[in-house]
Amino acid sequence: MSSTDAFVDLLTLAKGASRALATATTAQKNAALEAIAVALEGAIPEIIAANELDLARGVENAIGDGLLDRLKLDEARIRGLAAAVREIVSLPDPVGEVVRGSTLANGIAIAQQRVPFGVIGAIYEARPNVTVDIVALALKSGNGAVLRGGSAAEDSNRVLVRLIQEAVSGSGIDGNAFQTIDPFGREGAGRLMRARGFVDVLIPRGSAGLIATVVNESTVPVIETGAGIVHVYVDASADPDMAHAIVVNAKTHRPSVCNSAETLLVHAAHADTLLPRLVDALAERGVVLYGDERAQTAGVREPATPETWATEHLDLVMGVRVVDSMDEAIAHIDEYSTKHTESIVTNDFGNAERFLAEVDSAVVMVNASTRFTDGGEFGFGAEVGISTQKMHARGPMGLPELTSTKWVVRGTGQIR
Amino acid sequence: MSSTDAFVDLLTLAKGASRALATATTAQKNAALEAIAVALEGAIPEIIAANELDLARGVENAIGDGLLDRLKLDEARIRGLAAAVREIVSLPDPVGEVVRGSTLANGIAIAQQRVPFGVIGAIYEARPNVTVDIVALALKSGNGAVLRGGSAAEDSNRVLVRLIQEAVSGSGIDGNAFQTIDPFGREGAGRLMRARGFVDVLIPRGSAGLIATVVNESTVPVIETGAGIVHVYVDASADPDMAHAIVVNAKTHRPSVCNSAETLLVHAAHADTLLPRLVDALAERGVVLYGDERAQTAGVREPATPETWATEHLDLVMGVRVVDSMDEAIAHIDEYSTKHTESIVTNDFGNAERFLAEVDSAVVMVNASTRFTDGGEFGFGAEVGISTQKMHARGPMGLPELTSTKWVVRGTGQIR
Repeated sequence: MSSTDAFVDLLTLAKGASRALATATTAQKNAALEAIAVALEGAIPEIIAANELDLARGVENAIGDGLLDRLKLDEARIRGLAAAVREIVSLPDPVGEVVRGSTLANGIAIAQQRVPFGVIGAIYEARPNVTVDIVALALKSGNGAVLRGGSAAEDSNRVLVRLIQEAVSGSGIDGNAFQTIDPFGREGAGRLMRARGFVDVLIPRGSAGLIATVVNESTVPVIETGAGIVHVYVDASADPDMAHAIVVNAKTHRPSVCNSAETLLVHAAHADTLLPRLVDALAERGVVLYGDERAQTAGVREPATPETWATEHLDLVMGVRVVDSMDEAIAHIDEYSTKHTESIVTNDFGNAERFLAEVDSAVVMVNASTRFTDGGEFGFGAEVGISTQKMHARGPMGLPELTSTKWVVRGTGQIR
Repeated sequence: MSSTDAFVDLLTLAKGASRALATATTAQKNAALEAIAVALEGAIPEIIAANELDLARGVENAIGDGLLDRLKLDEARIRGLAAAVREIVSLPDPVGEVVRGSTLANGIAIAQQRVPFGVIGAIYEARPNVTVDIVALALKSGNGAVLRGGSAAEDSNRVLVRLIQEAVSGSGIDGNAFQTIDPFGREGAGRLMRARGFVDVLIPRGSAGLIATVVNESTVPVIETGAGIVHVYVDASADPDMAHAIVVNAKTHRPSVCNSAETLLVHAAHADTLLPRLVDALAERGVVLYGDERAQTAGVREPATPETWATEHLDLVMGVRVVDSMDEAIAHIDEYSTKHTESIVTNDFGNAERFLAEVDSAVVMVNASTRFTDGGEFGFGAEVGISTQKMHARGPMGLPELTSTKWVVRGTGQIR
């Protein structure tokens, strides 16, 4: 099939190839993944050369050191990508898994089985490693992928997608299941968001602004992988040492990621004892604290503003508020949380259960660091992203979240 | 909380009340359902009086006999609605069900549990019975509901929603969880589609046009309950009597519903024997047939056009095509199916398995009437709708499909 529209041609190609991929065996898909890993390792100089074009353009456009670092691919990172692809080989194939099933009174057997979505769309920014990640996860779950990696990483992604297509085709699966739409620029991104019938689900990965644009403009169903304004609440009954360890870990273990804590809510019972100790420990580790009046009394230097509570800092910055009750803590969370992860530190069983039941977030915790909200920690073995929406997938997403289901009905001539 | 915007006030009220409903016990929710059933039975004259205003307006606006019939509520129908509400009392409560869980090596216990979505939005047309259906299903699954029932049923819905609110509140759950936005007219429907943060999922029920509008204009996640261009393929190896029974049942048992067959694909091996017999049997039952050339040779009188294959007739109308292979049948289905239900009649095991694997529809069947695609037939006990999308829910939806999940993480002080 060909049209005068190169964009539609490309989506048609991806859709057609994905149909065949949907029924590929696990062994075939694993062989294709291994071929991708080998291809990446065999093309390190070529990938680096393309990446250097992106980096040079990034420097020219002054995109900043953080973005430049995300953009960069060196030999170690490329070998890391190949290793990550091989890790996906070892994960169980979700396709074909029976979710529910029964035999009806009339003898008909019904089974709800996992099937690939078809084609996954991905829109992300300046991170060529996501290109390989998404393709590997899509491939293992039997899906094609249409990628919009953004102009900043265009040269790297072009080479990566060509290597992937060749490797997959060489392994016996049609590599056309994987396509980049970067050559179509911003207009292509807009068309991808409205490509119903070609793309079955769209996953945005990146800044809050990017995600908001995709959510607002897409007619294709979206899985939102979102921001984390994550709270730790230290209850009146909390063990002070445990609270100390969890708060410091949740804030400082890796502050740039979405599951790190942004706001500390402390019950007034701890305002004079634990809180000053925590303030010192956090400050010692370079955390800049913004607090309400009582937190300032406990040693926090900067006053908090409503923006403090409403910002995902992704940095060594934390808001601190003293509350008089768990209800006050839950009300604060209700108002400011992005519904990613919240943790309570408590020794009160009733409060623990109420917090777990009433806080409406993807992950709710008792006596654990928020850093555990992670596909790897949960045992999923691969990071598709962490969904902050309620439909289809919520929290850390594994390969099963990249599948839909189908009802398979086996009769022997039954009619109604 | 109050603003100068009555629409936002109403959504805020629904959201607040839904938070409490989310943690209501099964017994409390069942008591509220029983109270609704009693309230409906106790207000039959009042409901009929309001419905008569809608019917009179319908006659005035010449909306047609079909719509008038859907709009009408008489004593028997109101008692039927109350009975349907009581049936939902007997269904298991999905909230709290543990979907997956494990204890990690570090001792943290994680469990993925079903939780209510929060607030379900519903947009439908001229069917006041849907008001009661949606509220009962939402209530049992712990969700609030904001309803846009359309101007044609405005008077009936106003009375029904008031009765529901009073009954629920009388039972001890805040009845404000259930609201109608009919007074806000078309503008209200548009705002509901964009009410992110207030409405967690939107379910359109009605015409293809209504559903397309909701899909295209919503920023709230949508569950599409869709049209059915449903196919039956009679394979070369099919038992002729079984094929005859299934085709006649799939087309004529209840032609106005989405799981009835619209297109018959017959392998050429049956073109001279079974097909003429089928044509006679269908014609005898009043089915108007449109066929390709070979079907016309077998007795179909009217020629099929591309529109024949692309139309959900919902009536005693059927397209008939003779194919030379299963591949040709699957290609036809790929082109025209709305991905609702397709059935193959065959005695060839390999063909059966290939059809089940390769046809990309919500329900795929072997040797059974397409009329079995139904929540009641599948044993779900209640009809939320039949999803034709791939995200979150696919095929007949039961109460579990009206829930999201939440990860509950229980630690003893673990940090990373």
